[in-house]
This record gives sequence, C-alpha cells and structure tokens, in this order.
Amino acid sequence: MATQVIILNGGSSSGKSGIVRCLQAVLPDPWPAFGIDSFVDALPAKMQTSDAGITFAADGGVNVGADFMALEATWMEGIAAMARAGARIIVDDVFLGGAASQQRWEKALGGLTVLWVGVRCESTVAAGREIARGDRGRGMAALQAEVVHEGVAYDLEVDTTHTESLTCARLIAGRVG
Amino acid sequence: MATQVIILNGGSSSGKSGIVRCLQAVLPDPWPAFGIDSFVDALPAKMQTSDAGITFAADGGVNVGADFMALEATWMEGIAAMARAGARIIVDDVFLGGAASQQRWEKALGGLTVLWVGVRCESTVAAGREIARGDRGRGMAALQAEVVHEGVAYDLEVDTTHTESLTCARLIAGRVG
Amino acid sequence: MATQVIILNGGSSSGKSGIVRCLQAVLPDPWPAFGIDSFVDALPAKMQTSDAGITFAADGGVNVGADFMALEATWMEGIAAMARAGARIIVDDVFLGGAASQQRWEKALGGLTVLWVGVRCESTVAAGREIARGDRGRGMAALQAEVVHEGVAYDLEVDTTHTESLTCARLIAGRVG
Amino acid sequence: MATQVIILNGGSSSGKSGIVRCLQAVLPDPWPAFGIDSFVDALPAKMQTSDAGITFAADGGVNVGADFMALEATWMEGIAAMARAGARIIVDDVFLGGAASQQRWEKALGGLTVLWVGVRCESTVAAGREIARGDRGRGMAALQAEVVHEGVAYDLEVDTTHTESLTCARLIAGRVG
Repeated sequence: MATQVIILNGGSSSGKSGIVRCLQAVLPDPWPAFGIDSFVDALPAKMQTSDAGITFAADGGVNVGADFMALEATWMEGIAAMARAGARIIVDDVFLGGAASQQRWEKALGGLTVLWVGVRCESTVAAGREIARGDRGRGMAALQAEVVHEGVAYDLEVDTTHTESLTCARLIAGRVG
Repeated sequence: MATQVIILNGGSSSGKSGIVRCLQAVLPDPWPAFGIDSFVDALPAKMQTSDAGITFAADGGVNVGADFMALEATWMEGIAAMARAGARIIVDDVFLGGAASQQRWEKALGGLTVLWVGVRCESTVAAGREIARGDRGRGMAALQAEVVHEGVAYDLEVDTTHTESLTCARLIAGRVG
Repeated sequence: MATQVIILNGGSSSGKSGIVRCLQAVLPDPWPAFGIDSFVDALPAKMQTSDAGITFAADGGVNVGADFMALEATWMEGIAAMARAGARIIVDDVFLGGAASQQRWEKALGGLTVLWVGVRCESTVAAGREIARGDRGRGMAALQAEVVHEGVAYDLEVDTTHTESLTCARLIAGRVG
Repeated sequence: MATQVIILNGGSSSGKSGIVRCLQAVLPDPWPAFGIDSFVDALPAKMQTSDAGITFAADGGVNVGADFMALEATWMEGIAAMARAGARIIVDDVFLGGAASQQRWEKALGGLTVLWVGVRCESTVAAGREIARGDRGRGMAALQAEVVHEGVAYDLEVDTTHTESLTCARLIAGRVG
C-alpha cells in the first residue's frame, strides 16, 4: 500500500531538517512536512518556563512535563487526521523516550501505512555541526545522539556522518511505496 | 460550552500574529497556535513555483491552486482533530475567499465550539506597517485589507489601527468561554 | 551640510527597527542601516556567556563587560569610516549608558554631520509590544524605556506610542539635510 | 605579525557560515564576524529591485550595480577601520569578480595582516546542500562554485566536500598568527 506518513527520528543536529527539504524536492507528490520544532514553536512562550511545559537546560538537556505531553498527543492525532484525509506527510521528531515515543506514534497512526526512518550521525560529528549551526544550545546533539534510537524499530536507517542529505533523501524516497 | 477553537481572520499586516502571542500570554490555559503561514512553510518549496500550489505576484497578489486547496483542506481536518482530542487551539488565517473560506472552516470544525474573530486594520495603516516589517511583498496588505472580510460573520471584531495587540487580545480573551 | 549619519536611540520594543525600514524606503538615497543588534549577532556566541561580553538576565536586564565595550568602540570607528568614505548611514542603538553612550558616539563620529533622533514609547505600551513580538526577553522594554534617554540631547524626538513608524520616518526624513 | 583579518571566500552553500561560527568558537580571542550577507541585509529593500543595486535572477545569478559597488567599497573601509582600531575580524565573502574582488579588499586592507582562506566545495555537493538548506535560490551554488576562486591567491584552502566545518576551522585557526 502507498506510504502515507514518513517519520524521521534522530537526535538534534543529526541532519533531519536537511533531509526533509531534500525529500520534499525529490518526491513527485507534494508532501507537507511537520517537525517537532514547529510544534514547540506553536506553544505559548510561557510553556518554556514551566516544568509542566518544555524546558531546556544549560547542558543541552530537554525536559518535558505533563502539559507538553498532553498537547503533543493531540498534535499526533492531528497529523494522523491529515493523513487519513488524504495528505501524504513527512514528520521529523526526536524520540526522547526511545521505544516509548515510537509507541505513542504507532497508537496515533493506527491503520496508516508508515515508513519509519532512523537518522543517525556520530555523536562527535553532530556536536561539531551543532557549533557550526549556532542556533542550538551546546550539548544537545551529544546527549541525544544515541538515546533517541534505543529500542526503536526502523524500516530504514540513514547516517549523515559521511552521507549528504540529498543522498539520504534519495535512499528514503526509494523505499516510499 | 467552553471555546475550543479561536479563529482570527485578517489581511496581511493587520496584526494577527502579535495578537496571537498576546492571547497565548493572557489566556490561563496553554493554547497552541497555528497560522496559515506555518502551513505554507510546511509545504515543499516547489509548490511556490507551481500554479497548482501557491504563488506570490509582484503586486502582492496571492494565488492558490488545486493542490494547495486540497492539502489545506486536510490541514483544517488536522486542526479539528487536535481540538476534538482535547487541545484548545488558536488559528490565524487570511480568508482570501471571504465567506467561502469561512464555510470551509465551518465544515471542518463541525461540532466544535468556535470563536470567530475579525482582525481589521485600515488599509493605509496596514500598508505602512508592511513597509516597517520589511518581510512581506509590498502591496499585499492593501490588497487584502477589505476583501478577506467580505461576507464573513464574526463573534467579535477588533481593529488594530488605533488599538494595541495586547488590548485586542484582552478583548478576545474576555469572550472565551 | 548634508546629513551623513542618522542615529536613532530608544529602548527595546520602542519601534526603532520599523522606523529604520521606513526611513530606508522614504529617503531618496540608498542609506545602509546598522543596528546594535547586528553588532551583537556578529560577536562569538561564547561572549553571551561571559561577564566580559554581553549577558541577558531573566528580568530583561542587559550587562556589558570590558571585551564588549572594547569591540563596540571599534565598531563605532568602523561606522565612522564608512561615513567618511561617502556612505550615508542609519544607526539604531540602545544607549544603556544614556549621555555617556552619546559621548562615545560623538567621539567616534567627530567631524561628521549627525542627526540625533530619540525614539520614545510609553513604557507600558512598549512592554505590551514586547509580548506581541515574542522574540525578546520579558522586562527589557520596561527597564530601558526611560533610562536610555537620560541626559541625551536630540535634534528630534519621535514617539511611537500613538504614531505609526512610517509617519515617524517621514518626520525624520524631513530633517535630513 | 598577529593576524588582524581572516577573509573566507567561497561560493554560496560552500559552508562559509558554519566555518565562521566554528572559528569563533575555537579561537581564544573574541573575533567579530561580518559577512557579505549581513551587508546585503543592511541595504534598503528597494536596492534589490534596482539594477544599480543587487538583483537575484531565477537561475541563481547575482548581479550588482554601481550603487552596490560604491556602498560595498565603503563597507570594506569600515571593516579595515575596525581592524585598525584593534578588533580582530573574520569576513566571509563571495568574490563574484574573482581576482578583481580580492584586489578591492587588498586596497581597503592596506597595511593590515590578512589571512586569505579559500573555501571550496564540489559543485554537485554544494548544489545538494543548497536544496537541504532551503533558503537560497536554486542554482546559485553551482554557478558560483568555481568562478569565485578564479585568479585568487590564498594562504590556505579548505574543502568542505568531505571535511566537517569544525575540522576546517581548526585548520584555519592553526594558521592564525
């Protein structure tokens, strides 16, 4: 059956956003793309100063609370509804909870055909790219590089350490049904 | 019944985004906010060079085609699903189709309690603010100032010509059930 | 003699940037514009975590140290050199030191024809606009609204509390020699 | 003698900005960085719709006119003045004129100790990264990849095709006197 949702999971600075834009360029159909960053941007600013929301520690740590989790669950339902209404959608996320995060998506996307993609990047390389981009707190890349993949099952994994975003995108596009 | 969705409609540079951020600050609950701009950003870049997508003319005109309309309809379904799953949501949109645009939202949001808000700004003032912000094509504000309100029914209208965003937000918040 | 440099001084969220873009639109000559924000952006990220650099407190306070002051002085020399080389330049700054800040500029700009412009905005209105823009720490607007004007001498003052950016720009342009 | 200015020259999407941020992180002193992009941003918006200014063609071509060249020359004087006043400065530029561009900088920076760095990236790789970043017109990377280096003499060349920004930055930092 035709792929309805592509989910990319990877740590901060692993190269997800670049792959997403390349995917949108190489896939023949118009696939809207929604990332966890866009969801965080949609939240009230005050949620970033509340333990119930989402807070960013000086060492790159990210903590999410009950209000964030509840709203994120509704966002997942929204993504699923878009796909059920006929859109083909790309999602990029950071599975802070590893396998548990995947289960939350599986629950929301029940009945939809999903392509699960792991985006890997060696921790030290990701940490260097974090410095180069300059818009993320130092430490986040290294903290997330491995933990987000723990226990997660993929249809396909790409590694941006030595592979360009466009090449990764073509590999993924080749697996889209 | 408690308001589930607040929809702000107004032309470019009428001040919607500022009101949205103030609303998020003054409303006690955490309301995520999704704007039509964020939806356009989610689309593949190539849709902005296709008549089936969304194109921006040199005079500030905006034209949308079949692919854009189809995907936008799924986005509306996604917003509705988020609200049905329990999120309280703020939407800001530009009703290029006036009353027809409102009907599309009404269809998607069936059964939900919606607060309809018109955001007005005198055309010449909006055109001046368009110059001041510097990130929008010249002409869009004037072209949209009146047409987006044609035939649209509101629960409340605010006018940013002489009223600050925060004051408008408080007026709107006072009408949230 | 023809005005060579226009300096706008005002607190955060007083509306300087909007006036600058309008000035660039209404002035017949092409005036490049350089703001203190662009200078801060040019600094190494690590200077924002050093007392010798520039640090932003949670209450909106801004503290600058010796390294920042030294580099800022060279930046002022650079602006002066551009003007002496023939460019007409708009600068927007926040005189954290009030009259002392003006004296630093006067020293750097010796021999150049400068138009000094104060950009005022009532503290509570600026604080509301700070919420509306959403990209500045809360509290900065109120803290800076008055103090940046202490002891500063202007050729012209504008007040954005009830006057649009474009109107302010036209008032300023009318004073450009 | 101690290096006073580092000039990085390379085509669009060759990776200059990432190297600059890494350089700022690894160099012990605080080096402000000014790029040609920041200069273009400082210009009036109307200069981007004038042949005398700077215009961007649909194929990625960039054309600069007399007003742009005149103001750019004053900007170079400003950079030189900052360095003479004691700042150590990083510049990133796109030598659209190749050797002629370098001569313009040499003239402005007379008497200063400059480290000239070429930033290369294979044309096809740069074109792929242009798609991945999504904020540049398609075609610019390929058009500029070779031409900007024609006739230019460097102290050091780095190639981001297979080398990370941070590694390139360390190579450059090792040559800073």
